[in-house]
Amino acid sequence: MRIALRVIGIGPGDPRQITLQAVEAMADVDVFIVLDKGADKDSLAALRTAILDRHAAPGHRVVVIADPPRDRRPVDYDAEVRRWHAARAALIADAVVAEVPDGGVVAFLVWGDPALYDSTLRIVDDLKQRPEFELDVEVIPGVTSASALTAAHRILANRIGEPIHITTGRRLPDTPAGADGNQIVMLDADLTFRHTAHPDDEIWWGAYLGTPDEILVSGRVGDVGDRIAAVRSEARARLGWIMDIYLIRKTR
Amino acid sequence: MRIALRVIGIGPGDPRQITLQAVEAMADVDVFIVLDKGADKDSLAALRTAILDRHAAPGHRVVVIADPPRDRRPVDYDAEVRRWHAARAALIADAVVAEVPDGGVVAFLVWGDPALYDSTLRIVDDLKQRPEFELDVEVIPGVTSASALTAAHRILANRIGEPIHITTGRRLPDTPAGADGNQIVMLDADLTFRHTAHPDDEIWWGAYLGTPDEILVSGRVGDVGDRIAAVRSEARARLGWIMDIYLIRKTR
Ligand SMILES: C[S@@+](CC[C@H](N)C(=O)[O-])C[C@H]1O[C@@H](n2cnc3c(N)ncnc32)[C@H](O)[C@@H]1O
Ligand SMILES: C[S@@+](CC[C@H](N)C(=O)[O-])C[C@H]1O[C@@H](n2cnc3c(N)ncnc32)[C@H](O)[C@@H]1O
Repeated sequence: MRIALRVIGIGPGDPRQITLQAVEAMADVDVFIVLDKGADKDSLAALRTAILDRHAAPGHRVVVIADPPRDRRPVDYDAEVRRWHAARAALIADAVVAEVPDGGVVAFLVWGDPALYDSTLRIVDDLKQRPEFELDVEVIPGVTSASALTAAHRILANRIGEPIHITTGRRLPDTPAGADGNQIVMLDADLTFRHTAHPDDEIWWGAYLGTPDEILVSGRVGDVGDRIAAVRSEARARLGWIMDIYLIRKTR
Repeated sequence: MRIALRVIGIGPGDPRQITLQAVEAMADVDVFIVLDKGADKDSLAALRTAILDRHAAPGHRVVVIADPPRDRRPVDYDAEVRRWHAARAALIADAVVAEVPDGGVVAFLVWGDPALYDSTLRIVDDLKQRPEFELDVEVIPGVTSASALTAAHRILANRIGEPIHITTGRRLPDTPAGADGNQIVMLDADLTFRHTAHPDDEIWWGAYLGTPDEILVSGRVGDVGDRIAAVRSEARARLGWIMDIYLIRKTR
């Protein structure tokens, strides 16, 4: 069956941080596939529903695909992620066959930009291999959480001419010297900067960016590091989940 | 005088890649300040005019600030950039005083996202220092040219869990080993990857992204490196200017 498949970046959380192109792309979708990350992110699901109510055509369907079980501390991280993606892609293929008419339009909504630490495009690659589909894939870029962070703090990501390193909490300790001048760190439940940064480095931290719960803290690591940790665990306990990101700038 | 100053990211070139928030922010601006980069970028100026015609209020004014002269091969690069920014900020301050009413709204439109290799926020910092202004600054994030590149090629910026290094042509040769797995290179008139990449590395190149002149080339560096150079100089000669960016992925 022939399917138009759209991967639509919808920005980091603020419903106004969606592009006109994304709005247009949502308008004639038959089925939205939603990858459910677990019940603790109810506020994100509510935000997404609000976006669909506003921009999707009446009569659109939403199919929620529950995450297959996943080993979070695997011996071989890459292999486990690949296995888990394949299991999820199989569930999605079944849903597309069951729910989407031949010639129909399927869309995935991705928070932020689809190119950044998101597995939807890997799932699409898997779907492309399947003989039952002929897919016309379109990817619509979105505002990243990194841009939302820097805009909220009204700062540049880089000092003049300097590179920017985007990494994860897991990989932050591996950033080589010379690449660590301006780092944007995502997916860091452990606030790893507390073990890698110098007290004189500067940090700009943001949680729930673009949502009514947005929190911003910035300053010298030595001055605000503990405060960020306290604010983070308080908010996480109160709201039941957290999404946060930070920029850390090495002092010269 | 009290001024609302907005720095508005308008995406990399496609007028549909503007956010709803940017559209809203353009609606009640009194004066748009446009930093003129020189006559060779007429098509960008035309794109910007089309965006303003569509989204700005009737009666808005556009003030074009010509770039002060700049030494492009200075001995001290940082000092020269700072001197040049200060000269430009002085011209802008004069224009604001002359053109904007007390309590008015001034906006700068920035291609892509304001946090990425753009000097507008540095100019704003300079304006903030001036005793004649009390500025309420708002920054509106935009889709970056990096996101436009990866969306056009329908790829992820990173392999699973890997960091992403964003750099310039000038700094590309300095990227340390361990940070060079996935690099996004901007501001590179010399296609520096030809001196730094391995023939087996993969490259995704894009020029004039989001405009009717968009060009994409991708493949193994050894296979497509020369083609990119040829396509680039042909397009640059034909259109009189070029904006291009690439992602280079190290083979493992
Ligand atoms: C799986 S990644 C997806 C990133 C997304 N594709 C993007 O372009 O921003 C999730 C991480 O993005 C960051 N993030 C995404 N949305 C965020 C938000 N609204 N506020 C703070 N951080 C956010 C957090 O670091 C989170 O751990
Ligand atoms: C001064 S920087 C500004 C970047 C911008 N703020 C952003 O977020 O993309 C200009 C560089 O951005 C890249 N760029 C911006 N717009 C582009 C486009 N439409 N197509 C290709 N490259 C673009 C090019 O590498 C260019 O040299």
